[in-house]
Amino acid sequence: MSDFPAFVHINEEGPREGFQIEPGPIATARKIELIDALSATGLTHMQIVSFVNPRAVPGMADAEQVVAGITQRTGIAYTALWLNERGFERAVATGRLHNRGSISLCASDPFLMRNQNRTPEQQLAGQHRIVEMYKVQGIPVERGGIMAAFGCNFAGDVPAERVVSLVGQLLDIAAEHDVTLTTVGLSDTMAWATPLSIKRVAGAIRDTYPELDLSLHLHDTRGMGIANAQAGLEMGVARYDSCVGGLGGCPFAGHAGAAGNVCTEDLVFMCQEMGIDTGLDLEALIDCANLAQDIVGHALPGSVMKGGSLRRLRDKISSGSGHIG
Amino acid sequence: MSDFPAFVHINEEGPREGFQIEPGPIATARKIELIDALSATGLTHMQIVSFVNPRAVPGMADAEQVVAGITQRTGIAYTALWLNERGFERAVATGRLHNRGSISLCASDPFLMRNQNRTPEQQLAGQHRIVEMYKVQGIPVERGGIMAAFGCNFAGDVPAERVVSLVGQLLDIAAEHDVTLTTVGLSDTMAWATPLSIKRVAGAIRDTYPELDLSLHLHDTRGMGIANAQAGLEMGVARYDSCVGGLGGCPFAGHAGAAGNVCTEDLVFMCQEMGIDTGLDLEALIDCANLAQDIVGHALPGSVMKGGSLRRLRDKISSGSGHIG
Repeated sequence: MSDFPAFVHINEEGPREGFQIEPGPIATARKIELIDALSATGLTHMQIVSFVNPRAVPGMADAEQVVAGITQRTGIAYTALWLNERGFERAVATGRLHNRGSISLCASDPFLMRNQNRTPEQQLAGQHRIVEMYKVQGIPVERGGIMAAFGCNFAGDVPAERVVSLVGQLLDIAAEHDVTLTTVGLSDTMAWATPLSIKRVAGAIRDTYPELDLSLHLHDTRGMGIANAQAGLEMGVARYDSCVGGLGGCPFAGHAGAAGNVCTEDLVFMCQEMGIDTGLDLEALIDCANLAQDIVGHALPGSVMKGGSLRRLRDKISSGSGHIG
Repeated sequence: MSDFPAFVHINEEGPREGFQIEPGPIATARKIELIDALSATGLTHMQIVSFVNPRAVPGMADAEQVVAGITQRTGIAYTALWLNERGFERAVATGRLHNRGSISLCASDPFLMRNQNRTPEQQLAGQHRIVEMYKVQGIPVERGGIMAAFGCNFAGDVPAERVVSLVGQLLDIAAEHDVTLTTVGLSDTMAWATPLSIKRVAGAIRDTYPELDLSLHLHDTRGMGIANAQAGLEMGVARYDSCVGGLGGCPFAGHAGAAGNVCTEDLVFMCQEMGIDTGLDLEALIDCANLAQDIVGHALPGSVMKGGSLRRLRDKISSGSGHIG
């Protein structure tokens, strides 16, 4: 409880994580509707599309139209995911996105091979090339990322020392190219993390690189998402990716490996109730979660969208109107 | 992480919490089937029925038949819930239950009035009477309980000092009747707790009554169940009520106030992965969760039952057969 950050930054990824995995098809206009609604909740960072091969991810084939259709609000960084130069060029071509470079390594060699068909050496060389590409394009590179930082379905457990070593490699790559990483994101890609491993890894990185901001990308496949975020908060981690309604997978559809991201409004509820500011309007987020549920056409795993906030109950109690059942 | 208990005691309440709330009707034989399956998971405490008015809770009208039908395993304390002397007598009459007395107070006066139609003074007097009744019957009284210990839909937030004071009242009642409470259970009846309030309340009680065992009864209405259990573990709390599959409410049915209990196999998964022994067979619990889902006929909120354990993945990795997708 002692190391709680005063302010937590939420990077909303529901539109990207959610719409790329839903069997769909979901109308472009409805995607835009959700993004525009999320823009009114106080969010300052939102990943809204991915620029990937439309044959591999048909749900993102309309990425350009989505970006073109949203009503941009001042103060919000709308971002996209890309996996290669072609995707990056598509993002730049929209002229409407907050494009930032990042470099990433993977804590699991077998996952890297299966997911990106690369050896660790190829991945390392690739990150050097990508930093240079961003520099040539005048794109800042301030973030690093570690995939599968807490365990891997193909490699098993990941020791904290390995993650610390990978963070060191990321910082070395950046230094060689005269850029400075301010944030490193740890992804629990396959939902192996527990509150204990979050604390171990975050603590080990903090001990070695105290100046570095950490961010967490947590999956809720095994129900540990909010507890893992809580462990992050206790370690002072102030940056979280999350998805409204728990978009990003359907834990009820049986495709276990893909099950949902940590849920934005549940995380914001926990922060608010523990006195941590997020700058976000919880009731507006709950409305967005219900909208997202309507758009995808099936129940979403978020809890506070069903259980309701406590602020509303407190307001009713203090106004003397009692409980609403 | 420092105060983790070495062993966590799980009191399974799925059959009681689950079958009393399901719209049903659920065949008696299927209730017995689940209880018998749970008996093979290593559980040592299981609350299987409630003896309440069958007009108020039709799902428990067959409580006697359920108790009569189960195959009892040595070493398991099968218990029942009752709310009055009539219910207690029915439990005793089965001749097959582990009947223990307990006394309880409520941190919310308005909830006490709505739920039990009693003032705090009436509740206090009632607890004195009930201890005497148990003594006359030769029933040990070792447990106390505090309802709505973390907040209430009708009264709002509950300060930690109030809970400590109520624990003191419970101990005083017991002392007056020459019985000794060894455990006090804190119920987050209406899902107001956060990890921070769990730590505050558990810490305040531990500071004042260090010899007392605490147990937690957590609801997951706002998605905080596992994070709250984790906070309990960090405070050294070693006793948890939980429900297989997250039985005990259907968060997808919109009756928010009743949404599920913390899920047994998710809690056991977290404990195991953090090195805390529970004596339970996680894979067998997952099978029970799937059985429970089949019995109630709708998706249950448990996560590990969908995401799978990590032990199975580790086994596959170490046997060289890789990931199963």
